[in-house]
Amino acid sequence: MRTSQALKVVGSSLPRVDGEEKVTGKALYTVDIELPGMVYGKILRSPFPHAKLLKVDGGKAERLPGVVAVLTREDLKGLNYYGAAYKDQSIVAVDKVRYVGDPVAAVAAIDEGTAEEALNLIEVQYEELSAVTTIDEALVPQAPLVHDSSSSGGELMGHLYQAPPEFRGTNLCYRFSYSKGNIDEGFKKADFIFEDTFTFPRVQHFSMEPHATVAQVEGDRITLWASTQDPFTLREHLSDIFRVPLNKVRIIVPWVGGGYGGKLAVKTEPLAAALSWKARRPVKLVLSVEESFKTVTRHPARYCIKTGVSRDGRLIARQCKIYMETGAYADAGPRVTQKAGYRALGPYRIPHAKTEAFTIYTNTVPAGAFRGFGTLQVTWAYESQMDIIAEKLGMDALEFRLKNLLKKGEEYTPGDTPVDCNLKEGLLRAAKAIGWNRKKSKANTGRGLSCCMKDGGGTYKVAAAAVKMNSDGSIVLLTGTVDVGQGARTALSQVAAEELGVPLDRVVVAQLDTDVTPYDAATNASSSMVVMGLSVQRAAQDLKRQILREAAKLLKDKADRLRLKNGNIYNSRGQSISLAGFMQRHFGAKGGEVVGRGSYRDIKSKRAVLGSPTTFWEVSWGGVEVEVDADTGEIKILKYVSIADVGKAIHPVQCVGQDEGAVMFAIGHTLLEEMVYKDGQLLNPNLIDYRVPTFRDVPKAFETILLENRNGPGPFGSKGMGEGGLLPVASAIGNAVTNAVGVRIYDLPLTPEKVWRALKAR
Amino acid sequence: MRTSQALKVVGSSLPRVDGEEKVTGKALYTVDIELPGMVYGKILRSPFPHAKLLKVDGGKAERLPGVVAVLTREDLKGLNYYGAAYKDQSIVAVDKVRYVGDPVAAVAAIDEGTAEEALNLIEVQYEELSAVTTIDEALVPQAPLVHDSSSSGGELMGHLYQAPPEFRGTNLCYRFSYSKGNIDEGFKKADFIFEDTFTFPRVQHFSMEPHATVAQVEGDRITLWASTQDPFTLREHLSDIFRVPLNKVRIIVPWVGGGYGGKLAVKTEPLAAALSWKARRPVKLVLSVEESFKTVTRHPARYCIKTGVSRDGRLIARQCKIYMETGAYADAGPRVTQKAGYRALGPYRIPHAKTEAFTIYTNTVPAGAFRGFGTLQVTWAYESQMDIIAEKLGMDALEFRLKNLLKKGEEYTPGDTPVDCNLKEGLLRAAKAIGWNRKKSKANTGRGLSCCMKDGGGTYKVAAAAVKMNSDGSIVLLTGTVDVGQGARTALSQVAAEELGVPLDRVVVAQLDTDVTPYDAATNASSSMVVMGLSVQRAAQDLKRQILREAAKLLKDKADRLRLKNGNIYNSRGQSISLAGFMQRHFGAKGGEVVGRGSYRDIKSKRAVLGSPTTFWEVSWGGVEVEVDADTGEIKILKYVSIADVGKAIHPVQCVGQDEGAVMFAIGHTLLEEMVYKDGQLLNPNLIDYRVPTFRDVPKAFETILLENRNGPGPFGSKGMGEGGLLPVASAIGNAVTNAVGVRIYDLPLTPEKVWRALKAR
Repeated sequence: MRTSQALKVVGSSLPRVDGEEKVTGKALYTVDIELPGMVYGKILRSPFPHAKLLKVDGGKAERLPGVVAVLTREDLKGLNYYGAAYKDQSIVAVDKVRYVGDPVAAVAAIDEGTAEEALNLIEVQYEELSAVTTIDEALVPQAPLVHDSSSSGGELMGHLYQAPPEFRGTNLCYRFSYSKGNIDEGFKKADFIFEDTFTFPRVQHFSMEPHATVAQVEGDRITLWASTQDPFTLREHLSDIFRVPLNKVRIIVPWVGGGYGGKLAVKTEPLAAALSWKARRPVKLVLSVEESFKTVTRHPARYCIKTGVSRDGRLIARQCKIYMETGAYADAGPRVTQKAGYRALGPYRIPHAKTEAFTIYTNTVPAGAFRGFGTLQVTWAYESQMDIIAEKLGMDALEFRLKNLLKKGEEYTPGDTPVDCNLKEGLLRAAKAIGWNRKKSKANTGRGLSCCMKDGGGTYKVAAAAVKMNSDGSIVLLTGTVDVGQGARTALSQVAAEELGVPLDRVVVAQLDTDVTPYDAATNASSSMVVMGLSVQRAAQDLKRQILREAAKLLKDKADRLRLKNGNIYNSRGQSISLAGFMQRHFGAKGGEVVGRGSYRDIKSKRAVLGSPTTFWEVSWGGVEVEVDADTGEIKILKYVSIADVGKAIHPVQCVGQDEGAVMFAIGHTLLEEMVYKDGQLLNPNLIDYRVPTFRDVPKAFETILLENRNGPGPFGSKGMGEGGLLPVASAIGNAVTNAVGVRIYDLPLTPEKVWRALKAR
Repeated sequence: MRTSQALKVVGSSLPRVDGEEKVTGKALYTVDIELPGMVYGKILRSPFPHAKLLKVDGGKAERLPGVVAVLTREDLKGLNYYGAAYKDQSIVAVDKVRYVGDPVAAVAAIDEGTAEEALNLIEVQYEELSAVTTIDEALVPQAPLVHDSSSSGGELMGHLYQAPPEFRGTNLCYRFSYSKGNIDEGFKKADFIFEDTFTFPRVQHFSMEPHATVAQVEGDRITLWASTQDPFTLREHLSDIFRVPLNKVRIIVPWVGGGYGGKLAVKTEPLAAALSWKARRPVKLVLSVEESFKTVTRHPARYCIKTGVSRDGRLIARQCKIYMETGAYADAGPRVTQKAGYRALGPYRIPHAKTEAFTIYTNTVPAGAFRGFGTLQVTWAYESQMDIIAEKLGMDALEFRLKNLLKKGEEYTPGDTPVDCNLKEGLLRAAKAIGWNRKKSKANTGRGLSCCMKDGGGTYKVAAAAVKMNSDGSIVLLTGTVDVGQGARTALSQVAAEELGVPLDRVVVAQLDTDVTPYDAATNASSSMVVMGLSVQRAAQDLKRQILREAAKLLKDKADRLRLKNGNIYNSRGQSISLAGFMQRHFGAKGGEVVGRGSYRDIKSKRAVLGSPTTFWEVSWGGVEVEVDADTGEIKILKYVSIADVGKAIHPVQCVGQDEGAVMFAIGHTLLEEMVYKDGQLLNPNLIDYRVPTFRDVPKAFETILLENRNGPGPFGSKGMGEGGLLPVASAIGNAVTNAVGVRIYDLPLTPEKVWRALKAR
């Protein structure tokens, strides 16, 4: 895996390949795409959380000058339903609307103003229905049903899932369960049993770039410029919805201004395509921030966690009951729920465990994939409870954790990949960095720790890449990984450059276009550095093999004794030929190219709980010191230390950037963010009323430590990263607050009001 | 080569894959591309045929509101000169202008009107110089020199060419010479010697779509949407001009509205790129018809042909002296001249031959590649002279030709590919179709025959293709062949579909983009069906091998006993799995793809005169019956029969369309077209004064016969075609005119005036 030569490009924080283009404003995003005859789409959305659709008439709107097409349910004949996990969503509502914001109709017009105006002319008659807008309301017997025939099911992780019969007539969408050992026996053996319930709020991704699509439908060919994280999966969805083969759908991905899971699977792209089909013209559909809030969120969750421990501080049994509110449509809900359920035990040795996780439909905005994918909801609970237990046992929270952490090589569940890092090392470094054993500097300050783990890379990934050498030795990399801002193009280019012995600036990444770019499942789950990184590395190695095989003849040496360095090929006698010179000799002309291909595929295993052992373990630790203002309840973060197990940092500055961004994201969830529903109406779908963290919220002292033990399966020992930093934040802060002022809050976010009330109630 | 199974897709005239898109007006051409912030380019052109540039000042133009950039010679520092054969051309004129239309400066402005207006504000001072605007003027001793230091040279067919010292101080640009046997001995042995001089006029390609480029330069990355026939070669030129690696230049090719050689190599694309670089914005540069006339033409030529024959009608010796007027810049002139010289002997057995062909600079628009590439000029001469000789010998022109035609397997020149078809067969069919031996139906009518041959496929081609199967079994074809209207996408898709046993509509061709499309040298010289056809076929076969190897396990049979048919894989026991089913089993999920690659490379041989034996021989025959109006001199074509040796017609209707188009093109050259220069000014650069043939000029009876002997090296025995149809037209018509009214005209076009004057002089 590791070459004996020193790394030249990998491990260096070189200028990003997209840096200049982006900071000069020249980078093209989907919203910048212009096509001849293009018109603009706008969506009419439901004002009711739940209502029958009695009438949808676009006639008046169609007659407004400048309107090119009005799309209503009448136009959906012959089109399939869709969804990331289940096919429960239609392009516009058909029989009823299920949440405030549910698309009812859409208009394409010559400009956005005309399209907006036309929306008001669409005549819709609703018959309001009772709605369920919380998990509790949804689970009441005889509750109004979000989906009347709740025979949910779909393909999940490659297997067809059919909801159990008892879900019929309920708002239950999906259930995941898993157990090991004997949970009842476990609790019997325990000296203490702790039962706590934690909740996690509804939060939104808030990508700087809202959802955007330019669609052009010509005959049976659908071309999309889309701000998406998984163009190939999006292609599958569109192929299925419009009943055309995959090669009739082409997704081109311009630069993407953030995704965080909100641009996975399928969102408003089918609507844009349907509008273009009806308008017979290209359509640009760009959502507002408010509309993105009404398109997808993270799952609000409730986690009832019951843990049995021995007097001497060993975890013996844990029972988890998790409720994930997926809103009006399943989206990725079942998959998120599965991951939440699977990851609910934490990085600990727990012999007896049972987990049950439910997905619940409600009349709210759909919840889907979100950076950390079901994990934040459970880490918040299990790492908070660890402190509760330690306190009750009179143990130091660090000691208690160290006692129970899984060791490297231990199995989290039977059949899964054994733990691939030293969990203790990171936790001790976090404790040290935060001054765990130092005395408190002042009153109302406190420290908290947290240690979290998730199976990284998504489940069952398939990917490929190609690396092409032009006749002048310059390199083009073809990769389906979307650079959503995380720096993937830079890091993957580094891998190719390193393998081929050329400087980074010799590598250019081709535009992502599903017609020509090798297949990749998705840019998600911190997978790219391993899944695509290995594909790229293998493609570069394949290219190298081809070059060296031919160069061996020219340089009169064995291929395996040749070396690529500084854009030249050297033989063992130190003679060399430049790559350009080689190419011209090889092709006998200026033209020609050599292409290497590489691919990656996870293995399937029936022994593994999720059907496929995890690609790697993404492990992260957080240490925090806070100060609580006893008068206002405000929490101030004095210091935050994040530790990321990256295996090998391909681009250290980008890794730190990703990790800091992750922590800030989670600080938002922990202290600030919550989408508030009242009477089925979302009250704060905007950045005035919904506060995301800004630079003012950055901790005073803020540090990321990258653990580089080359313990990852990725190129040069790397692992995926980018989500880990989020996981420990809420619990570390919650634990620090308890440490500071003695109160424990179970419901995020930890607003000043909640802290103040808890202090009052003390 | 040939499978025993009947062909399902190849050989059928299925609907063109681009048909609907084009006839509904939805197909995007370069002119349709819109980019954010895009501005429009216009070129200031020289009004003088030859002048020193004393001053070029863009200051006033730059200050005109709406002007974004003015490009002058000051901006060219650090940029290289360019040209298809020699680097003798700069983006705008530097020291002097060399023809009327030579670019002097350029403007980018917010709209075309402003750009036009700004052109008038550019201050230029010229000092007029004497000009040479004909071959004769250029060759006079002490003639004004188009290029002062005439040390011409460059890379030609992969070899560096250095003009001989005696060219210094002359307007000679290049010389090609070749001889076999002993020319002096040959003429001594001859009973009769014929010496004639024929001329060919300056004609223009007139593509329906003029030259068009959208350029976007960002930092060191140049992206071009270009109407080009050879994006990879264009990429090389831009890489060289702007001194950036190949991977920093990206050429995307939208649909192209005709090329005919006029869009080969490099034309105004560097100017568009330089304007974008200076404007720091994308620039659209679309030439008018008049500007295309001032950008490139076919070479006006003079061919002095001296032939010795025996009394019994055997060709014994031929000496050819050919002068090709290449205008102010070499463009492809040397290569065209080389081909003209090489092809000057015709499809005949001539033991003693010497050919000398010169390229001449003059102060006229540059001449470059043009459908037929140097061949029309020589076929006009040699096939006209064949009739002159036959008449003198008292032989039937058909008999005389049959006596001298090369046989299948004979070598045209030593080391070249032996003749690969039965020349006699085609000629007899042409004669029969035209009623050669029938009595004349009426006065002033006559019949003519012609038989021509050119080495097909260009010289030394390198190409590759990829064929990708998606997880639903649908196919994407990646090919660098440009569909310039000839139907390449359809025909190449047929080859892939045939190999993979799927219907044509399962194949989609990806957009051509040099970043991602496999390398291809050029779409020229009737090469695509062989060079790219074989690449595509091999790529499909590579894909098939991969699929069958894996499918063999599933279907429990040997891979070589499996068959692909109707989108399914069958084993020898008749069991089958669909391609989609196979892909899902193979990848264990919905995603994934399999990619096959194929390539083609001509062989190099020092024995071959041109360094590489021809890929195939493109052979064509024409038979014509004309009626001459003795009062007006007008020639009416009563019947034209074209015979094309296509090996195997992949798409018969497209082959016929190509051939008919070729004949009409040459009818234009023969009867109508000529660019007229007076005092260095081009008088008729427009479609009013320069007449191209229209539907009214289509012969009353018009027939194309495809010879399908599967004698080609291409897929399924195909050969390239599309240029052959042009070659016999002028001489067949000229011969028919002589046959009709007894006059012989040596200078094209055969206008009524010329015929009338000849009749008067009779």
